[in-house]
Amino acid sequence: MSARKLKVGCAGLGRMGKRHALNFLQRTPRADLVAVSTPDDSELEWAKANLAPYGVTAYKNYEDMLKHEGLEAVVVASATAVHAEQAIKAIEAGKNVLCEKPLSTSVEISQTVLDAAAKKPELKVMCGFSRRFDASYRDAFNKMSAGGIGAPAVMRSQTCDKLDPTGFFVAYAEFSGGIFVDCSIHDIDLALWFFGQDSKVKSVSAVGITAVEPDLRKHNDRDNAVGLVEFHNGKIAYFYASRMMAAGQEDTTEIIGTKGKLAVNTQPALNLVNIFDENGVRREIPQHYYDRFEYAFVTEANEFTACCLENTPVPLKLEGAVQAVRIGAALQESLITGEKIFFDDAGQRIPKARL
Amino acid sequence: MSARKLKVGCAGLGRMGKRHALNFLQRTPRADLVAVSTPDDSELEWAKANLAPYGVTAYKNYEDMLKHEGLEAVVVASATAVHAEQAIKAIEAGKNVLCEKPLSTSVEISQTVLDAAAKKPELKVMCGFSRRFDASYRDAFNKMSAGGIGAPAVMRSQTCDKLDPTGFFVAYAEFSGGIFVDCSIHDIDLALWFFGQDSKVKSVSAVGITAVEPDLRKHNDRDNAVGLVEFHNGKIAYFYASRMMAAGQEDTTEIIGTKGKLAVNTQPALNLVNIFDENGVRREIPQHYYDRFEYAFVTEANEFTACCLENTPVPLKLEGAVQAVRIGAALQESLITGEKIFFDDAGQRIPKARL
Amino acid sequence: MSARKLKVGCAGLGRMGKRHALNFLQRTPRADLVAVSTPDDSELEWAKANLAPYGVTAYKNYEDMLKHEGLEAVVVASATAVHAEQAIKAIEAGKNVLCEKPLSTSVEISQTVLDAAAKKPELKVMCGFSRRFDASYRDAFNKMSAGGIGAPAVMRSQTCDKLDPTGFFVAYAEFSGGIFVDCSIHDIDLALWFFGQDSKVKSVSAVGITAVEPDLRKHNDRDNAVGLVEFHNGKIAYFYASRMMAAGQEDTTEIIGTKGKLAVNTQPALNLVNIFDENGVRREIPQHYYDRFEYAFVTEANEFTACCLENTPVPLKLEGAVQAVRIGAALQESLITGEKIFFDDAGQRIPKARL
Amino acid sequence: MSARKLKVGCAGLGRMGKRHALNFLQRTPRADLVAVSTPDDSELEWAKANLAPYGVTAYKNYEDMLKHEGLEAVVVASATAVHAEQAIKAIEAGKNVLCEKPLSTSVEISQTVLDAAAKKPELKVMCGFSRRFDASYRDAFNKMSAGGIGAPAVMRSQTCDKLDPTGFFVAYAEFSGGIFVDCSIHDIDLALWFFGQDSKVKSVSAVGITAVEPDLRKHNDRDNAVGLVEFHNGKIAYFYASRMMAAGQEDTTEIIGTKGKLAVNTQPALNLVNIFDENGVRREIPQHYYDRFEYAFVTEANEFTACCLENTPVPLKLEGAVQAVRIGAALQESLITGEKIFFDDAGQRIPKARL
Repeated sequence: MSARKLKVGCAGLGRMGKRHALNFLQRTPRADLVAVSTPDDSELEWAKANLAPYGVTAYKNYEDMLKHEGLEAVVVASATAVHAEQAIKAIEAGKNVLCEKPLSTSVEISQTVLDAAAKKPELKVMCGFSRRFDASYRDAFNKMSAGGIGAPAVMRSQTCDKLDPTGFFVAYAEFSGGIFVDCSIHDIDLALWFFGQDSKVKSVSAVGITAVEPDLRKHNDRDNAVGLVEFHNGKIAYFYASRMMAAGQEDTTEIIGTKGKLAVNTQPALNLVNIFDENGVRREIPQHYYDRFEYAFVTEANEFTACCLENTPVPLKLEGAVQAVRIGAALQESLITGEKIFFDDAGQRIPKARL
Repeated sequence: MSARKLKVGCAGLGRMGKRHALNFLQRTPRADLVAVSTPDDSELEWAKANLAPYGVTAYKNYEDMLKHEGLEAVVVASATAVHAEQAIKAIEAGKNVLCEKPLSTSVEISQTVLDAAAKKPELKVMCGFSRRFDASYRDAFNKMSAGGIGAPAVMRSQTCDKLDPTGFFVAYAEFSGGIFVDCSIHDIDLALWFFGQDSKVKSVSAVGITAVEPDLRKHNDRDNAVGLVEFHNGKIAYFYASRMMAAGQEDTTEIIGTKGKLAVNTQPALNLVNIFDENGVRREIPQHYYDRFEYAFVTEANEFTACCLENTPVPLKLEGAVQAVRIGAALQESLITGEKIFFDDAGQRIPKARL
Repeated sequence: MSARKLKVGCAGLGRMGKRHALNFLQRTPRADLVAVSTPDDSELEWAKANLAPYGVTAYKNYEDMLKHEGLEAVVVASATAVHAEQAIKAIEAGKNVLCEKPLSTSVEISQTVLDAAAKKPELKVMCGFSRRFDASYRDAFNKMSAGGIGAPAVMRSQTCDKLDPTGFFVAYAEFSGGIFVDCSIHDIDLALWFFGQDSKVKSVSAVGITAVEPDLRKHNDRDNAVGLVEFHNGKIAYFYASRMMAAGQEDTTEIIGTKGKLAVNTQPALNLVNIFDENGVRREIPQHYYDRFEYAFVTEANEFTACCLENTPVPLKLEGAVQAVRIGAALQESLITGEKIFFDDAGQRIPKARL
Repeated sequence: MSARKLKVGCAGLGRMGKRHALNFLQRTPRADLVAVSTPDDSELEWAKANLAPYGVTAYKNYEDMLKHEGLEAVVVASATAVHAEQAIKAIEAGKNVLCEKPLSTSVEISQTVLDAAAKKPELKVMCGFSRRFDASYRDAFNKMSAGGIGAPAVMRSQTCDKLDPTGFFVAYAEFSGGIFVDCSIHDIDLALWFFGQDSKVKSVSAVGITAVEPDLRKHNDRDNAVGLVEFHNGKIAYFYASRMMAAGQEDTTEIIGTKGKLAVNTQPALNLVNIFDENGVRREIPQHYYDRFEYAFVTEANEFTACCLENTPVPLKLEGAVQAVRIGAALQESLITGEKIFFDDAGQRIPKARL
C-alpha cells in the first residue's frame, strides 16, 4: 500500500455533496479532499467553516475547481440536471469521475457521458449506485454467486421512502424523472447486478396511484408504483416504490433461486435494541436512505480512490447506469400510459402496431 | 349455547377431505360428523378404520350420502372438477354447504353455484378461503379496520409452495386452472377482503417463467408468476406465486396504508425454537399450507357450524368466490398471452380494439 | 384407535379448572367429561350454563363426584392447598389422576401423593407441567436428544408474568410457596427434563428484590428473583422469575450445549403480524401464560387420556414433581436467608457447620 | 471545529494494538498517529510495512516512544500485565492515556493507575470499555434515562465467545484473571453504567463448569460461569460468560425496569441478509468481538481524541474501571471457592465469621 493520496474535488455541497465531501476528507484515508465547488453562497459558507480549516479550497465556479493544481478526481454530487455536463467536463479535463446516480434522467444524455468516457479509457468513471457497496448486498451477491440458491430466477426489490410531510418530493418530481427513475433505479441496478449486466429486457409494465399526494399527477408522477420487468434470459424482477412509508426507509430485496432465497433487509432495524413495553416488542428502523447506507457511501469513496490510485477497474460498469435509466424510463412511461411496453432481444422497442 | 349438534357429511376423503372429516369429527364440538362419501376404495378403507368406530357412515356414492337421515350440512372437499356439481346438488337437497375453494376454475360454472344458492336463501353456503379464518390475518384486518394504518392503498401478497420434487404439480396443472387460479386465488381473496368486496378491477397484467418445470408450458402454466391488479377505487395489489420455494411454504402479505403497514408472516417460523450452531441462527418454517393454516381450518369448521345452528350470516360472501376466480382467470390469461387486460367500471372487459 | 372414551371428572372450576373442563369436553376427542365438582356457587352456576347441556353432572362435593358412575379419571384443578388431598382420595378410589402443578408447595406433602400412587401402580398419576406438552419445547428436546447441540451444559430459563396492576399476586403469595415454587417450578422441571430426571442438585443460591410490590415481603416473597442451581453431573441452570413484565408473559429458555444452543421463545410473538408505524416495527406478545400455552394444555389432556385408555406410561414421572418442589423450596429459602445451600450427592442437605 | 490534530502514540501492536493503530491513523480525522512501540520484531516489521509510509515512527522501547517530539496521548494496547505500568509512565510523562481494559487483573494495581492520574488532573485518562461507545448500548441507555422503562431493576448480561478450537484461551487463562475478569468485566461495567456508577455491591455468588476445557481448572478458571450480583440500592444483575458458543460471539444484555425492558442484541445478526434454504431461515452472526464492536472502537478513538483536544471530561470515569475489577475478582473468587461473598454498604467485605 502506497502512502500517496488521491487529490479529490467535490462538485456540489447540497445534502449529499456535504456527505461526500466529509467522507473524502475524513473517512477515506487514501484520499485528500483538496477542493469543492458550489454556486450556492450558503454552501460556500459551510465549506469555509467546515472544510477550509483542513486546507480545502472552495470554488464558486465548477470550471475553476477543475483547474485546481494537482486535482486527480472529481465527485459529481450536484443537482441531477448538471450531472452529465459536469461529468463530461471533468472527463475532458482528464479527471477521474465518481458521479452520483443517475447520470441523467434521460437515456440520451446519460449516453453522452459514456461517449465522453470512451474517449479517455485511462480514466476511472463510475456512477455511484450505493447498494453495490453495501455489505449486506455484497454478502447476498457472493452467496448467490457461490451457488447458494441455485439459479437466480426472480427478484423482488423495493425502494420506499418515509413520508416527508413537507411534500418536498412533489416539487422535486418536476425534475426527478419520476418515481421509477428516482427510486427504483437502485432496484433496477440490483437486478442487472444479480441477473447479469447483459440481461436484456423483454417487457415492462407498471401501475401506480397517488395515495397521499395527488399533486404529483401534475408532474406525471405517482407516490406508489409497482413495476414488472421481464428479461429475455427468462428471469423476472418486480419493483415497488413508495413515498409514504410510516416507519422509515424500507429498502428490501429478495433474490429467489431454484434452490433458495436471499432476503436483504426484510426485517429492517436501526440497531440491535428491542424495546419491550405495554405495546409489545418494538424496534426502530432507519429513517432515511443515508441512515441505512452511510457505510456504503464510505466504502464507495474508499474503493473508488483505490481504483484510481492503483489503476484497477471500477467495480461497476458505466454502461449499467445507462441501462438502468432506460428501464426506469420505460417503467415510468408504462406507469403513465398504462400500456405494457415490449422490446426485442436486440434491445429495440417493438412498436404497438407490430404486437 | 345450545347442546344441539349439527349433522355434517363430508364429500371426498383425499388429503384435504380427511382433514375436514377429522376436524368435524374431533375438533368441532358443536358438530357431529355422521357421514362421508368417496368413490375411492382406499379412501373408503381409511373411513372404515378411522371414522366408522365413531359411528360415521361411509358412502361410495355422493347422492346416497345426501339422503343420510338427518343430514344438515355438507363439506365439499372432493376434486375441484366436481365442487360445483356437488355443491349444487347439496343445495338442491336443502343442505348447508361448506365448499373447498375454488367453486370452479371457470367463472361461469362458479356462477351456477351462486344461482343455486340464490334460490335457497335460508341455507348457509360458503366457499372456504382459509385465510379468512386465520388468527393473524384477522388481527391484521381488525387493526386496519380500526384505522391503524390510515387508508389501505397497496397490497403485496404471495402464495409460494415448497418445491415438490415429485413434480406432482405438473400433472395437476392440467386441471388446476393455472398458478393464479390455484395459488393466488387466496391472495386475490385477501385483496377483496382488505380493500372491500365491492372493489372493481381496472386492469390486470402478469408475467411468469418456468424456472424448474418447463413441462408446465404444456398446460399453459408457469412455476413462478407475478401479477399486478389495479382497482377502480385507486388501490393496487400485486401478487407473487411460486412452486419452487426451498425452505417451505411462504405465504406472506403486506397491507400498506397511508399511515402504516401491516405485515403478515414476513418472518415465517414453524415454532418458537431458534437453533444456534456453526451455521449461524436458524429456524424452521412450515413445509406445507396445512402446517401453516391448520387452526384456520379448525376455526372455519367451528364458525360454519355455528352459523348453521344459529342462523347467522357466514363470514364471507359467496359472490366473492366468483370475483376471485374472475380476477385469477384474467391474470392467468395475461400470464400466457403477455397482454394487459382492462375492465371498465361496470366490470366489462374493454376490447383491445377500443384501447 | 378404539372409539371407547375415557370418563373424566374435573375438580375445581376456577380459571384453570374451567379451561380443563372445556378442554376435556370439547377438545379431547377420546374423553367424555362426565362430572365436575366445586364448592363455589358461582362456579356451579357456570357449570349449569356451560356444561350441563352436554350431560355433565356438577357436584358441590368432591367425594360425591368420585362416586360418579363409571368415572375413570380425575383432573385436579382446584386450589393448590387441596391438590394433594384430592389427588390421594382419587387414587384411593381407583381413579387415574391428572393433577395441576404443584402437587403441594411442601416437599413432604408432595411426597404423600407419590406414596399413595405407589400403592396403585395400575393407575396413571401425572402432575401437569404444561411445558412438557408444548410443541416448541418438545422440538427443542428432540433436537437436543438427536445430538444437535452436543452435550447440554447450561440452561437459562425464565418465567416472567405481565404485571397485574390489581396486585392480586400479593395476596396470592401467602399460599403460593413463593416466586420460585410458583413460577420457576416450570423452569426447574425443564432443567430436570433436559438434563435428565436423575440430575442431583449440588447447590442453590438466589437473590431477589421487590421492585414494584414491597408488600410481598410480608409473605417472605419477592417480585423479581434470580436463582443459580448447580448439579452434581456438572451442569448448571439459572432462573429468572418476575411479576412485573410490561409487554406480557415472557417465558423463555435457552439450552446451551458444547456444539450449539437451542433458544425457545427468545423472540416472543402473539401471532404472525408485524405493525410498521411511526414508532418503528412492532409486534404484540402473549399477555398471560394461557395465551402462550393453550395448545400445550389441549395436548396434555389428549395424551393423558390416551395413556389411560391404552395403559401406556405417562410422559413425565411423578417423582419429578417432588424433585422440582424440593429445588424450588430451597431456592426460595436461599432467596430469603441470602445463604447458599449445599447438597451432597445423596441429595442430603449439608449443614452449614460442615461447610 | 479546529483543524489541529492530536498527536497519538500506540503501545503494543498485537491483534488489538494493530486495530487501535489503524483506527487512529485512518479513521480518527482529528488525530495523527505519530508513533508506535512494541518489543516484538514481527510487529515492528508490520509497522514498517503498514505505518511507516504514513510517517509513523516505530519504537522498540516504550519509554523512547514517550519521548517522541510533540506526543500528546498514548493508547496502551499492550499485554494486560503491563497496562498499569505503561499507563502510569505515560501519565507521569504528561500524556493523555487511553488504556485497554482492564487496567490490571488486580484491584490494587488498578488503583495505582488512579492514584497516578489523580496527581495529574489536567490529563485525560480513560479505560476503554468498548460497549460504552456502541450505538446500540447508547441508544438503550438514552431510552432508559428518558424514563422509557420506568426504574431499572434487573440486568441480565452475557459475554460469550465463540469456541476457539485451538484452545488458546486455556494458556491465556494463566494471566487473564479468570473468565469473570476477562469477559464479564464488560457486563459489570454495563451494570455500573446503567444502575449508576455509585452502585455498591451487597453480595456476589457464582458457579461454573468446564464443559469443554477441563484444563482450565489448572488456572482456577472455568469455561462457563454464571454470577449473581446484588447491589445495596436494591438492584440485581446476573451475568453469564462462556468460551464455547457454536454460532459466534453472543454478547447480549437486557435491562428490565418497572415499566419496560430494553434488550440489546438478543437477536444477533452479522448483517441484513437472511438465507432461506432447505434448512429453514438462517442468518450469520458476528464471529468475534471485533466483528460486533468495530465501530465502537472507532467511536472511542474519536471521542477520546475530541476530549483531549477540547479539554472536556472523558465519557467514563476511571474509578469505574477499578470497581469493575473489584466485582469481577470477587465473582471469580466465588466461582472457585463456591462461597457467596458479602459486602457492607461502605464497600468492605464482611468476614465469613460475622455472617
